[in-house]
Amino acid sequence: MSHAQEQQLERLTFFSDAVFAIAITLLVIEIHVPHPVDASDGAWAHALLELVPHFIGFVLSFFVVGALWVAHHRVFGLLRRYDPGIVWPNLLLLMAVAFMPFSSSLMSTHPTERVPEWFYAGNLLVAGLLQHWLFRRALKAPFLREDVEEETVATTLRRTLALPLMATIAALLAIRWPGPSNLPLMLMPLAVRWFARTARRRPVKPVPDQAT
Amino acid sequence: MSHAQEQQLERLTFFSDAVFAIAITLLVIEIHVPHPVDASDGAWAHALLELVPHFIGFVLSFFVVGALWVAHHRVFGLLRRYDPGIVWPNLLLLMAVAFMPFSSSLMSTHPTERVPEWFYAGNLLVAGLLQHWLFRRALKAPFLREDVEEETVATTLRRTLALPLMATIAALLAIRWPGPSNLPLMLMPLAVRWFARTARRRPVKPVPDQAT
Amino acid sequence: MSHAQEQQLERLTFFSDAVFAIAITLLVIEIHVPHPVDASDGAWAHALLELVPHFIGFVLSFFVVGALWVAHHRVFGLLRRYDPGIVWPNLLLLMAVAFMPFSSSLMSTHPTERVPEWFYAGNLLVAGLLQHWLFRRALKAPFLREDVEEETVATTLRRTLALPLMATIAALLAIRWPGPSNLPLMLMPLAVRWFARTARRRPVKPVPDQAT
Amino acid sequence: MSHAQEQQLERLTFFSDAVFAIAITLLVIEIHVPHPVDASDGAWAHALLELVPHFIGFVLSFFVVGALWVAHHRVFGLLRRYDPGIVWPNLLLLMAVAFMPFSSSLMSTHPTERVPEWFYAGNLLVAGLLQHWLFRRALKAPFLREDVEEETVATTLRRTLALPLMATIAALLAIRWPGPSNLPLMLMPLAVRWFARTARRRPVKPVPDQAT
Repeated sequence: MSHAQEQQLERLTFFSDAVFAIAITLLVIEIHVPHPVDASDGAWAHALLELVPHFIGFVLSFFVVGALWVAHHRVFGLLRRYDPGIVWPNLLLLMAVAFMPFSSSLMSTHPTERVPEWFYAGNLLVAGLLQHWLFRRALKAPFLREDVEEETVATTLRRTLALPLMATIAALLAIRWPGPSNLPLMLMPLAVRWFARTARRRPVKPVPDQAT
Repeated sequence: MSHAQEQQLERLTFFSDAVFAIAITLLVIEIHVPHPVDASDGAWAHALLELVPHFIGFVLSFFVVGALWVAHHRVFGLLRRYDPGIVWPNLLLLMAVAFMPFSSSLMSTHPTERVPEWFYAGNLLVAGLLQHWLFRRALKAPFLREDVEEETVATTLRRTLALPLMATIAALLAIRWPGPSNLPLMLMPLAVRWFARTARRRPVKPVPDQAT
Repeated sequence: MSHAQEQQLERLTFFSDAVFAIAITLLVIEIHVPHPVDASDGAWAHALLELVPHFIGFVLSFFVVGALWVAHHRVFGLLRRYDPGIVWPNLLLLMAVAFMPFSSSLMSTHPTERVPEWFYAGNLLVAGLLQHWLFRRALKAPFLREDVEEETVATTLRRTLALPLMATIAALLAIRWPGPSNLPLMLMPLAVRWFARTARRRPVKPVPDQAT
Repeated sequence: MSHAQEQQLERLTFFSDAVFAIAITLLVIEIHVPHPVDASDGAWAHALLELVPHFIGFVLSFFVVGALWVAHHRVFGLLRRYDPGIVWPNLLLLMAVAFMPFSSSLMSTHPTERVPEWFYAGNLLVAGLLQHWLFRRALKAPFLREDVEEETVATTLRRTLALPLMATIAALLAIRWPGPSNLPLMLMPLAVRWFARTARRRPVKPVPDQAT
């Protein structure tokens, strides 16, 4: 039966991968081909300049969804089988991810308005919290691979706090500076690393190395 | 040859997963970015309020397709190889699933009209019946894993009755109350559980435990 | 190295499956939500009636792409590794499949005009010929699983002739009867079976059973 | 742990495959169904003629993305596990690939204008350089399969230079001849082969055959 359970984990992983891959690739279809007034380089420069918020939104959302996938990939690599109870939390996370093409497009179309920024930040906040909840449920005793250390789990969970925090900061900044308010999201790699380091600095009770 | 057959089952599963994943992610692309009259919070509140039926439709259809995937995932996890005769029933179920982005968008665009509600409920009814038919054909003697008990099969088949029943109720309610008529669909987790329990309560002839 | 080669075959199969799955699911997004003049049942009946060619086109193309996938699935299940020379023929077949959402939508939007029918039939003809070419190249001596009989290969290749033949008939009929000209395509399951039987009836030199 | 690492490589490969497959299949959705003035063959010929740049763009981009996938497929087939450091370079390559449906559609919609040609060539140039960077990082000592020869790695890296070179030539030609400037891209198979041969001609220090 253990082989069957492994296959089921593989399939859950697979389905999640597919949703991540589709959502990340659909980000582009909301960028529409411009029709400048004439074929001159000037008209084109103007037309492409107007698309810049869409390009930034595409890159930003690609990184966010990419980071969510990388974390999902890392966490599911720590499991040897799965708690059936994570199927729906996983689907909820995927729902937040599948919603990204809309909220990303909403923000890119209205790049300096407050409400779309809140909407986008809200989507990221929800995705981040669902990710934290999912990982907390998945990374538990009988489901973990035997060679996974307690510290790895703690660090992984801590890292998931970066996205909700950064999304909250972006939402607060959007009250005054919609648009530039997204800058903190670009600092997310630093935030993730900072949270990871915090976890490591905390005194951890020595765990007997199970991999020996 | 048993290895090859297992691979074929994997590929059938895989293709199905991909169609589920694409259909569930495409649900979002029918939600269009609004263009409120101005950038004020009031205009935005109004614009987003008008999108609420689309958001509800997205969430509802995400749960329906998600539930169909979870059931498919569970059932195919009970098989060790497959009856070639299920390939086309499986494709028919996928067709009903692939059609969901259209019927979901139709209902969300006309959230209080009778015909779109019927159309949506009809799609769910067809999907539910096809699912029942597929599972009935797939969960049979030489194809099941050896450790699967008869009761599990019975329960699984019973659970598939929840979707057709709820879709029928939604269609009947839509005659009078199009829109709120979808409420029973949100009770589906309860309905599924109720059907599952019914199966268990029925006296089952004791089956010798094949897993020893 | 044999394990690595098997993995490469798996990945080729996987990529193909994904393209089939996406193309088959994208068929729906060309069906646009109607906006009837009012919410009466009559106005809706009229609006949905106008969509009927799109529904037929969706179902027809779903079956065609589905049948192409089923055949691909069956053929790749006969291989144990692959001739690197089939990678590009396989990509060409996938190109014809990926083009189907456009030609299907073209035909559905202009359901009784000659040129769109030819365009659609042409796409099917090309897909059918590429499929035949691919299978002929793939199903060869060192790449086949050992237990595959010569007759199975012959039957499989014969079956691929049904699609080009039916597409040609549909194109010829479209000269006079664009629209109903697609009827032969619905007879394809019969045509496939007829070609399969033809192969079997031909006297086959007795092949020593390699599977012992 | 080696089994787990292999699975992680499989999943990275899988996610990449899915993005390639979606991007390659989305290329078609930017081709819109024409509405000729009447149903005559002449009006249709005219309407389809206007779509020719879109058809060429579809085929060209399908081959480019297809070639990028084939190379990715070949390179990842040489690995037995992966350097975690390639996850983000891989995502960057996928971002360039996921952007192709937009730049391809931009070029097809404005087939004889300079800026869209530059935009398209720029996308290809970036994709080519990212591919080279990724492969250079991935194809390194502890991660390679044991039976992979040094020469194979050198040839593979050399082949990746064809795309950036051809994209640069296309961009330069577009200054004068936007449109025909894409011709060198169609010569890419030749360019790839030429680069591959160059590598082989260079005197290679004899490497003891590790596969013996």
